[in-house]
Amino acid sequence: MGADPLTPGHDVLAEVEASAGLSRLESTCVIGADVGATKIAVGVVDPTGAIIFRQQTASPSQDGARMVSEVIGLLDNAIESAQSEGFEVAACGIGAAAFVLHAEGLLLSAPNISWSDVPLQRLAIQATGLPAFLDNDANAAAAGEHLAGVCIGVDDFVYLTLGTGVGGGIFVHGRLYRGHKGTAAELGHMTIDPHGPLCACGRRGCLEAVASGTALEREAAALIETEKGSLLVELCGGDPACITGEIVSAAAERGDAAALEAFRRIGYKLGLGVVNLIHAFDPEKVVLGGGMARSGHFLLDEVSRAVSENGLPELTRGVDVVLSGLGADAGIVGGGAIAWEGIGGPS
Amino acid sequence: MGADPLTPGHDVLAEVEASAGLSRLESTCVIGADVGATKIAVGVVDPTGAIIFRQQTASPSQDGARMVSEVIGLLDNAIESAQSEGFEVAACGIGAAAFVLHAEGLLLSAPNISWSDVPLQRLAIQATGLPAFLDNDANAAAAGEHLAGVCIGVDDFVYLTLGTGVGGGIFVHGRLYRGHKGTAAELGHMTIDPHGPLCACGRRGCLEAVASGTALEREAAALIETEKGSLLVELCGGDPACITGEIVSAAAERGDAAALEAFRRIGYKLGLGVVNLIHAFDPEKVVLGGGMARSGHFLLDEVSRAVSENGLPELTRGVDVVLSGLGADAGIVGGGAIAWEGIGGPS
Repeated sequence: MGADPLTPGHDVLAEVEASAGLSRLESTCVIGADVGATKIAVGVVDPTGAIIFRQQTASPSQDGARMVSEVIGLLDNAIESAQSEGFEVAACGIGAAAFVLHAEGLLLSAPNISWSDVPLQRLAIQATGLPAFLDNDANAAAAGEHLAGVCIGVDDFVYLTLGTGVGGGIFVHGRLYRGHKGTAAELGHMTIDPHGPLCACGRRGCLEAVASGTALEREAAALIETEKGSLLVELCGGDPACITGEIVSAAAERGDAAALEAFRRIGYKLGLGVVNLIHAFDPEKVVLGGGMARSGHFLLDEVSRAVSENGLPELTRGVDVVLSGLGADAGIVGGGAIAWEGIGGPS
Repeated sequence: MGADPLTPGHDVLAEVEASAGLSRLESTCVIGADVGATKIAVGVVDPTGAIIFRQQTASPSQDGARMVSEVIGLLDNAIESAQSEGFEVAACGIGAAAFVLHAEGLLLSAPNISWSDVPLQRLAIQATGLPAFLDNDANAAAAGEHLAGVCIGVDDFVYLTLGTGVGGGIFVHGRLYRGHKGTAAELGHMTIDPHGPLCACGRRGCLEAVASGTALEREAAALIETEKGSLLVELCGGDPACITGEIVSAAAERGDAAALEAFRRIGYKLGLGVVNLIHAFDPEKVVLGGGMARSGHFLLDEVSRAVSENGLPELTRGVDVVLSGLGADAGIVGGGAIAWEGIGGPS
């Protein structure tokens, strides 16, 4: 694809292109959007997955119509910004924290946002005049790892996003696997323990119920009952109900025994889920992403122990469990990866 | 591919071809082998998955070298038989009850057969002079359903073989999904209940431990302790240790309450596994095969109940759970399907 001619002397673009290693002919980009219950983040994503420009806003999550207009507004801003820098914008990709029918471009429903049956792909195409693609946020994040994270060149991997909930994305034969309807990889709702804690979905012992940020908070709150001297007590002002994932992470960073034990407990249960996924998918890698993966080093030992204690050696041998390489950028890069995939790839 | 010229007046072949709807040019076939701990069955399989000729023998399962020579001997017999009927034999496919590395053609190990690290693909190629392919029996059976069973034209499905153990096969984008090493779809060792009964693999509560023929026998044996009048008592001569899957099926066919309850119990747990698989794979169908599927009509109601009580409606909606269409022929047709796949398909 041809690129818009560069404005002579346009230093910003020249710098951006130089830093991204782009030539004039390579200055095509896509727009990646990360649509969640807390924030909407949109960025300009180059063929290598690097983010050229980014913007975000708080999600008006209780107002579906405003959600749509905020998404469209940020897409438009990003397109304009990219074009003003001389980039040709090839497509938009949206990763949304929702049940999504990718092929129909339809957002079915979302646990924490008041919208349902939103034809977000069509709305984005109409508003931007560009090809646009929609997927759920975990699929998008998995695609982001394949484009620019720890799974470049990895054909078969399983991605878990660990946040308030747990989502999943699966790469099979080098492509995102979406299943028949387009809802594959709801890995957060794999049962780990039918007698376990209640999940937000109404079932018991889903991976999400035992190995999410929510589960971490629950384990930590239970632990301070018995570990009175824990730093957790101080950090939550003595009220277990005020414990957050950030507090547990902060305490763990400072070596607090209760916080580390909370991570170990959910790490082991996460590992049981990882075993099931290795047995089912025989991946080359299992990638842990999402907000909790930033403290993932507190989880990995117990994940490995669970895998070695519970996995079939023929199957678990050689499978790497690794942390996401994209951090806080995973959402935007993921949206961009969905856009690049939609138009047949960046190359 | 060209076919050997037909011998004029060769009625048997003419009949076979007429019944299979084959013209002279279509008389290419493959050999399918089903290698298990109990028997080795080999057949000539036409492009539609129909079996033209079959032969079987008991497995010398305690003698790995004899296992190999029996398999090779039956392959040779089948090839000779097919050729004598004027068929061109294009390839051999072997489905083995074992951990298999498909790409390497290597049989790693088998739970109930004394062989390990057997390069069965290479041995078959050397012995027959034909292309030969090796996979595990559940993958082969899944391929058989795609060739000639209930999944013709179905791109995305999950297959479970329910016998003494539980195996799995996964079709993704219209192809068998084998994963990175080639060991994907070990679905029998997905944890359903970490507090559940011990599995043969040493873990607790695997799908195989709660929803196999072995589990059926265990549930039935437990039930006759409380259901003294059960037909099961009569059929097992009063000794719960003598209960077999066949006995439970026979009692269920005659309406015995305890036998039906045993099926219901494992049906529900099987359904929990099916839920996990639907959430992970978003298949169009879930197929239940293997010996126990012959009594699968006693399982399906509880499987459906478990799916409807435990599945996410967005994901489980429209997914059919069905019984295998191949019955006792699944192994040979499956081996044949692996052969056809290996040479690029029957068409």
